[in-house]
Amino acid sequence: MVKVDGMAGTPTTAEHLRAALDGPWRAIREQARTEFADKQFAGDPNLDLPEARARVLEQMRTIAALGYPERGFRVENGGTGDPGGAVTGLEMLAYADLSLWVKSGVQWGLFGGAVENLGTERHRGYLKELINLDLLGCFAMTESGHGSDVADLETTATYDPATEEFVINTPTPSARKDYIGGAAEHARVAAVFAQLNTLGEGKGVHCFLVPLRDDEGNDLPGITTSDDGRKGGLPGVDNGRITFDQVRIPRENLLNRYADVAPDGTYSSEIENPSRRFFTTLGTLVRGRVSVGGAASAGARVALSIAVRYALARRQFADPDTGTETLLLDYRSHQRRLLPLVAKSFALAFAQNDLVVRMDAIQTGRETDPHAQRSLEKRAAGLKVAQTRHASRAIAEAREACGGAGYLTENRIVTLKGDTDVFTTFEGDNVVLTQLVAKEILSGYAEEVRDLDALGWVRFAATSAADVVRKRSGVRQLIQTLRDRGDETVDEADLGKRSVQLQLFADREDYLLRTAAHRLRARAEETTPFEAFNNAQDHILAAGAAHIDRLVLEAFVDGIADIDDPDARELAETVCDLYVYSTLEENLSWYLMHKFLSVERAKAVRRGVNELVERLRPDALTLVEAMGVPESMLRAEMLTDASVYKRA
Amino acid sequence: MVKVDGMAGTPTTAEHLRAALDGPWRAIREQARTEFADKQFAGDPNLDLPEARARVLEQMRTIAALGYPERGFRVENGGTGDPGGAVTGLEMLAYADLSLWVKSGVQWGLFGGAVENLGTERHRGYLKELINLDLLGCFAMTESGHGSDVADLETTATYDPATEEFVINTPTPSARKDYIGGAAEHARVAAVFAQLNTLGEGKGVHCFLVPLRDDEGNDLPGITTSDDGRKGGLPGVDNGRITFDQVRIPRENLLNRYADVAPDGTYSSEIENPSRRFFTTLGTLVRGRVSVGGAASAGARVALSIAVRYALARRQFADPDTGTETLLLDYRSHQRRLLPLVAKSFALAFAQNDLVVRMDAIQTGRETDPHAQRSLEKRAAGLKVAQTRHASRAIAEAREACGGAGYLTENRIVTLKGDTDVFTTFEGDNVVLTQLVAKEILSGYAEEVRDLDALGWVRFAATSAADVVRKRSGVRQLIQTLRDRGDETVDEADLGKRSVQLQLFADREDYLLRTAAHRLRARAEETTPFEAFNNAQDHILAAGAAHIDRLVLEAFVDGIADIDDPDARELAETVCDLYVYSTLEENLSWYLMHKFLSVERAKAVRRGVNELVERLRPDALTLVEAMGVPESMLRAEMLTDASVYKRA
Repeated sequence: MVKVDGMAGTPTTAEHLRAALDGPWRAIREQARTEFADKQFAGDPNLDLPEARARVLEQMRTIAALGYPERGFRVENGGTGDPGGAVTGLEMLAYADLSLWVKSGVQWGLFGGAVENLGTERHRGYLKELINLDLLGCFAMTESGHGSDVADLETTATYDPATEEFVINTPTPSARKDYIGGAAEHARVAAVFAQLNTLGEGKGVHCFLVPLRDDEGNDLPGITTSDDGRKGGLPGVDNGRITFDQVRIPRENLLNRYADVAPDGTYSSEIENPSRRFFTTLGTLVRGRVSVGGAASAGARVALSIAVRYALARRQFADPDTGTETLLLDYRSHQRRLLPLVAKSFALAFAQNDLVVRMDAIQTGRETDPHAQRSLEKRAAGLKVAQTRHASRAIAEAREACGGAGYLTENRIVTLKGDTDVFTTFEGDNVVLTQLVAKEILSGYAEEVRDLDALGWVRFAATSAADVVRKRSGVRQLIQTLRDRGDETVDEADLGKRSVQLQLFADREDYLLRTAAHRLRARAEETTPFEAFNNAQDHILAAGAAHIDRLVLEAFVDGIADIDDPDARELAETVCDLYVYSTLEENLSWYLMHKFLSVERAKAVRRGVNELVERLRPDALTLVEAMGVPESMLRAEMLTDASVYKRA
Repeated sequence: MVKVDGMAGTPTTAEHLRAALDGPWRAIREQARTEFADKQFAGDPNLDLPEARARVLEQMRTIAALGYPERGFRVENGGTGDPGGAVTGLEMLAYADLSLWVKSGVQWGLFGGAVENLGTERHRGYLKELINLDLLGCFAMTESGHGSDVADLETTATYDPATEEFVINTPTPSARKDYIGGAAEHARVAAVFAQLNTLGEGKGVHCFLVPLRDDEGNDLPGITTSDDGRKGGLPGVDNGRITFDQVRIPRENLLNRYADVAPDGTYSSEIENPSRRFFTTLGTLVRGRVSVGGAASAGARVALSIAVRYALARRQFADPDTGTETLLLDYRSHQRRLLPLVAKSFALAFAQNDLVVRMDAIQTGRETDPHAQRSLEKRAAGLKVAQTRHASRAIAEAREACGGAGYLTENRIVTLKGDTDVFTTFEGDNVVLTQLVAKEILSGYAEEVRDLDALGWVRFAATSAADVVRKRSGVRQLIQTLRDRGDETVDEADLGKRSVQLQLFADREDYLLRTAAHRLRARAEETTPFEAFNNAQDHILAAGAAHIDRLVLEAFVDGIADIDDPDARELAETVCDLYVYSTLEENLSWYLMHKFLSVERAKAVRRGVNELVERLRPDALTLVEAMGVPESMLRAEMLTDASVYKRA
């Protein structure tokens, strides 16, 4: 029996699985499970807004004292240089309270990350203060008029050589900074993204440190902050608005890692291409997207843990034969509702661990491949989409699966629902991010053909089209077609092979990608680029989604490979099958329309989901325990007072 | 030009459409638009719980003074005998505030409905008082341990002939009444559903009037009420719990329309079959389900009106050719996200009007067909599912489509989201209700064969199987298959024909129904009835859903037939096409797997959705205006202060 680190005695299957899902920063997760289970970190939905905000700030001071944030900073900046540990440790706050997680993320991740990664030696002094919360900051990127389109932000930072200052200004109503966590109340300084102008020339978006408030919390001259007020959730986060009326800041407040302005106004940058400079700047902030995805998944795990445990206690309707009331989780519809979401939670946990490992390797300098950063950004965007979408769906299903009890705040799920709702929006709208992923893989595809002339394109299109045809008329498809026409027994076992499953996921991605590329190409000759793109937008988004699904499956498969315990591994394999079958089922019309699955095999997929949820039903509690949310952190009243919904 | 009632001048296309969607109680809707637009009825999310509850109660007094509730009661009971007008008028409150709508529904619909429909002459005195709010009541059906399974409620009402009283008691923790609107604070009396026991015999669930509080609001002896506290929404509704400790009430407090207990304890009922008695009792309460569906759809219309209007003002990302930023609604993905939901809102509005007409005909005695009541209950259950599911989805999409702005309470959508979240649960969990619909149509199907012996079943199965095969191998299918194999041009126009569309919806329902019946039959011989049912549960639920989709489409088609204005009618036809195509698209894998659509036609469906959203794009504002939520009732700050998200 393989020993699971840090466990006393012989580990259970659930513990083996939990160890696998915990990933490389398992020790930090275990520490956090102990520390954050303390009641002081639990959300209190009965507080009013000012109380909720004050409480979160107090909680953050304790988090700082426990040493969580300093992992996120380099040793020379007063940290311990463990970015993976920082993201993982703070993610565990999501089990306690998402307001606390968001506000911590704003202070140490976004604001701290901007100062550390976009600043230089001269800004180092801020870091120690922001780690220990002597300096509270905010991350003022989004404006009321521009969120996803960061390059077109309207706030200006105009250099005045006479005084060696930048003048920060809000030129229009839509240039107002908005939804900024910390801006309503606590932040003393903001990392402001603004269009840099010097010597009459626009140089694009750069980041500046702008003091907002004095020690008493009053707006400084030229600064007007206001409060976004109540939101759909996250009451402990003081989101607000900022406008700047010709606010002067020293030249040195430009975070000048990638570009600088000399005292005389001369602009310089080691990155000549402005677009590359912009994307390099944003790329250093990838940790935010990595973190949001992780916290969304953590929230989903809490909700699913509550709903599955409830379904293992609550009974409804007596079996006419036995007279015994049936447990909710013994209904097929309930199994189908919850267990595929548990399976997806497993898949995403492995995918998130893999993502954090990649991020950590790059940010600690162990990974030096120049393509790795761009690949990380694509993957972080894709997993942010997958995980936040999953969280919205899983938490909504969990709420409904718990009926009226699920609607009471004392049972926690509605708070998770409200808090995570905006995760599909922040750190990038999910549609825009899916498009970003798709564009990235499309441009990879186009690179093969970048320099082709018109004739080359024609030849290329012909070849690729043939390639596509090959897929549809290849040997496998032929067998398939033959089978469909006759009454031969279909070999359903085939679909159970991991290699076939991976191929099916890859086929969908490849086919969507190639056909999207061709569609764009074909349209581009008749219409404007925007119209060509817009006409194919649903196709392009589908390609992005297919890419994400494949990455997640690959991570799941890799994750299983690391499980040594045979029982745990076998269970994980079944969970992986359920992830595969339910993902295939969600995309069944596509597979049928493009003849990657025959009708008989499609029916086998649907049947397979039923069989797999039935097979996993006895292990439901094991799976919940493996997801790793300690029972003491669920904080759902109905789980502690089970007699009220269990018949005596 | 056909004149639209009550409109000055020549009506616009939007006004014609609105008149059609308003339906038979248009005058009441118009009156409500004027009256409820008053700021006093708007929700105020900044109130704390006690304030929110007190405010709703005050608002209800004004609603009562305006005469809305009395429409719901018969003339002899002090009402005006207009049940359709009552449901429609109160539904309009959903545009103002859903807490107000729910609490009004509890008082006048559930509590008032129980007294009027389950009580007799001797209870008439309560009605006048509850209409004018001198008597505040609640509807104490659900218990912590039993919600969907009303027949197994645990609260007891034991008759004591010695004192001619019933003794109401809560025998177990799970028998606690829970989630009861009004129980936490305002209700003075409860309509309590409990197991009637007399002379040592259980007679099933009956309804009793039980006083809860004295005039100072203190619990009466034996009564313990408590507060459910915060919920995912509906802050103005004081949901709570009630336990009864041997509470004695007079014999006359039994609502005795369908059954009575004589002073000596003798039980009598005009309905001998206890199960039929129970379902008759519940059937009289159908108005609750009718109302919830309507209010859910109203909430969806508000959210979609806000999101579409925002998408017609907010721009993001410049078109590289023109430099102009693109309106959100000009993106294909945004059109695809919002416009099919608008189309579904149209469909459901027509279906709801049709449902209310049927309810009104029965409840005013104009409809006397004995099957009509049962058919109404099935339809009400189905449309409750369809509309509450639609609301959850539409409001979630609307939130996401408005990005960060959508998350601010000042823009209303998150409040709608939280308030409607529980609509999928109350008045019957959606899974349970879908099952009820499916069982009802299954039993209709089984009636044809109810008395068959074993041989008869075999013969029946053989015939029906042949029938199913006919569908798959019929002429149309044959042509289809031929087309698929060759390169002939597929006649896509076919799918645009309403008759073909209706047939496709009906085919899906028929096929799912027949195959579910056969599956149940086949399984029943190998296993227990519960297992047979449970194994086919996903299949049965799919049959229920298909039935609902067909009803909705038929109502849409009938609704269009009443539009005289040619432009309005043409636009409605296109909206109906979008409803059809997007519903087909959602069920595409089913149509493909069961060969009702060929691959080529399936692709035409997908393409069709794209073409239809593009065609409807220029009419987006017209469609929103037609949905009939007055601009003054949207109350989204971002729509009144557009400069902050529109580039100057």
